Amino acid sequence: MNATVQKRLLEVRLLAMDVDGTLTDGTLFYTEEGHAMKSFFVRDGMGIVLLHRIGIRTALISSETSPILTTRAKKLGIHHTFLGCVHKDLVLKELAQKENLSLEQIAYIGDDINDISALKIAGISCCPSDAHPDVKGIVDYIAPSPGGKGAVRDICDAILALKNQVSANLWSDK
Amino acid sequence: MNATVQKRLLEVRLLAMDVDGTLTDGTLFYTEEGHAMKSFFVRDGMGIVLLHRIGIRTALISSETSPILTTRAKKLGIHHTFLGCVHKDLVLKELAQKENLSLEQIAYIGDDINDISALKIAGISCCPSDAHPDVKGIVDYIAPSPGGKGAVRDICDAILALKNQVSANLWSDK
Amino acid sequence: MNATVQKRLLEVRLLAMDVDGTLTDGTLFYTEEGHAMKSFFVRDGMGIVLLHRIGIRTALISSETSPILTTRAKKLGIHHTFLGCVHKDLVLKELAQKENLSLEQIAYIGDDINDISALKIAGISCCPSDAHPDVKGIVDYIAPSPGGKGAVRDICDAILALKNQVSANLWSDK
Amino acid sequence: MNATVQKRLLEVRLLAMDVDGTLTDGTLFYTEEGHAMKSFFVRDGMGIVLLHRIGIRTALISSETSPILTTRAKKLGIHHTFLGCVHKDLVLKELAQKENLSLEQIAYIGDDINDISALKIAGISCCPSDAHPDVKGIVDYIAPSPGGKGAVRDICDAILALKNQVSANLWSDK
Repeated sequence: MNATVQKRLLEVRLLAMDVDGTLTDGTLFYTEEGHAMKSFFVRDGMGIVLLHRIGIRTALISSETSPILTTRAKKLGIHHTFLGCVHKDLVLKELAQKENLSLEQIAYIGDDINDISALKIAGISCCPSDAHPDVKGIVDYIAPSPGGKGAVRDICDAILALKNQVSANLWSDK
Repeated sequence: MNATVQKRLLEVRLLAMDVDGTLTDGTLFYTEEGHAMKSFFVRDGMGIVLLHRIGIRTALISSETSPILTTRAKKLGIHHTFLGCVHKDLVLKELAQKENLSLEQIAYIGDDINDISALKIAGISCCPSDAHPDVKGIVDYIAPSPGGKGAVRDICDAILALKNQVSANLWSDK
Repeated sequence: MNATVQKRLLEVRLLAMDVDGTLTDGTLFYTEEGHAMKSFFVRDGMGIVLLHRIGIRTALISSETSPILTTRAKKLGIHHTFLGCVHKDLVLKELAQKENLSLEQIAYIGDDINDISALKIAGISCCPSDAHPDVKGIVDYIAPSPGGKGAVRDICDAILALKNQVSANLWSDK
Repeated sequence: MNATVQKRLLEVRLLAMDVDGTLTDGTLFYTEEGHAMKSFFVRDGMGIVLLHRIGIRTALISSETSPILTTRAKKLGIHHTFLGCVHKDLVLKELAQKENLSLEQIAYIGDDINDISALKIAGISCCPSDAHPDVKGIVDYIAPSPGGKGAVRDICDAILALKNQVSANLWSDK
């Protein structure tokens, strides 16, 4: 992560995240009745919990409409959940307004071409290591870990490190 | 992908796909009551949706009979679903006739030996990077990604690129 | 696979298989109510189906007691299913007697230390590429693929190749 | 594993384990109704069963509260299950007292920053090969295998080897 990216990441007040392929590894579990399950990663969840402890806000922005997202968001205390989003840039602008933040204060992480409009206007744009090539070509920072396997934690850890926060202490001081 | 393969891929009007091992990674989830779940890949689904936007038709051809396939096909707007197919070459011919296409205008992707009859007569034959060796030995093009982890998206992206389509624009212009 | 192993594999009339870690990748899915699911691999299933077409018999021998095994065995037409087996060597001897075969005519594949007694007396002993080190140290043949991801198919393919059987033809001639 | 670690591991009378990311690969399966499943590894379970046969005690210490943990613990005969633990060091001290052991006689394995307080006071501290960097930086021993894919078995095997126990014999002599 270069110095410019670090400087902009330090300004971040809200982390907005795509879900499938970013907070999950892109797997969609189907039963005969439809889309039944998603699988998340415990260490990504811990990263989000730690961000909340230092006052960073969080949001999910997905083109999917599954209530599974709301369930996971609730468990982690994520502040905003936007479902069924086609134009994610418009959602990001709406979110900035709602939170009284500038787009520069928002980091966005996504993995596929429907994230590109949001990635282009976010203060800092990130993607998992296994994102679609079109996404990897335009982001500020490619996380070392793949989607649903640490990509989101990588971003959380980077923010915590820049703010000189020790994760184990943040946890213990609860 | 060599020039001959590119030229034939440009002619493709329909993409026919095997399911287990191609649109999935070959995993079959069983409960005591039987085969309960399959898992698909979100970025493969996006590829199929993008093909539909430029008028390419799609079909699933499986030797399995699970209604899970119909559920996934419906979600993605796949035009044809053939279940319980033993002789996939005969199904491919039936499909060509139904769609008023020649076999040269159909691409087929499959991963195992029961796909070989269809792969041999399709205009262009493809397989995931982790297909059975007998399949890898006879196809026109081996996708860089494994089954259920991008192989189908690789084919979709190749078609879109040959037609000079920008995926992010196809999505935004909806 | 060296010449001695090939010669012995040619004599095989029955393939006996461990389940967890061999026909699965060792993953046990639990809900609050208990062990809910196992996941199998579609290409392993195809290998077993092809063996049946050339008259090779098959058996599952597991220390587990889950009815999921019976369900999967039924789907594939596996001839014998032994559950809750502690001393797998005794089960293998019982199976040989039942099928009127010598132990030399039986191949066994397993991945963990509770398979060692059976592996030691089978005509040919095999394990997945990711088996426990104690098992890898004593078998005749280590399959190139891991458990639940092609190890059983590797053995099936080796038998079919030694008998000059073309899998695609075996399938089409149905 | 160096001589000091070996010497301390030989003294171990109880193995305390984190669950998510240690006994699982960190995957959390969600349905619309909430956290529905966890997946465990059959060969990790075998390691725990073998430890019990030589009189080593075991415990689960998790910050999660899912009854799935109790179900898995019961299946394997694990002696203690602590759920909803924030300060794992305090739980470890309570456990030592309950079992009339010193902390030196307890090994602990965990993968994330909420395990650090317990890892710091355990007689021997271990983590999976894919643990969080903050954890890998402070443990006595990094297992060669990742969480939910053999890390716990690695520790069990190391203890058995140091005590000159042959796993296959421990199993057969049952």
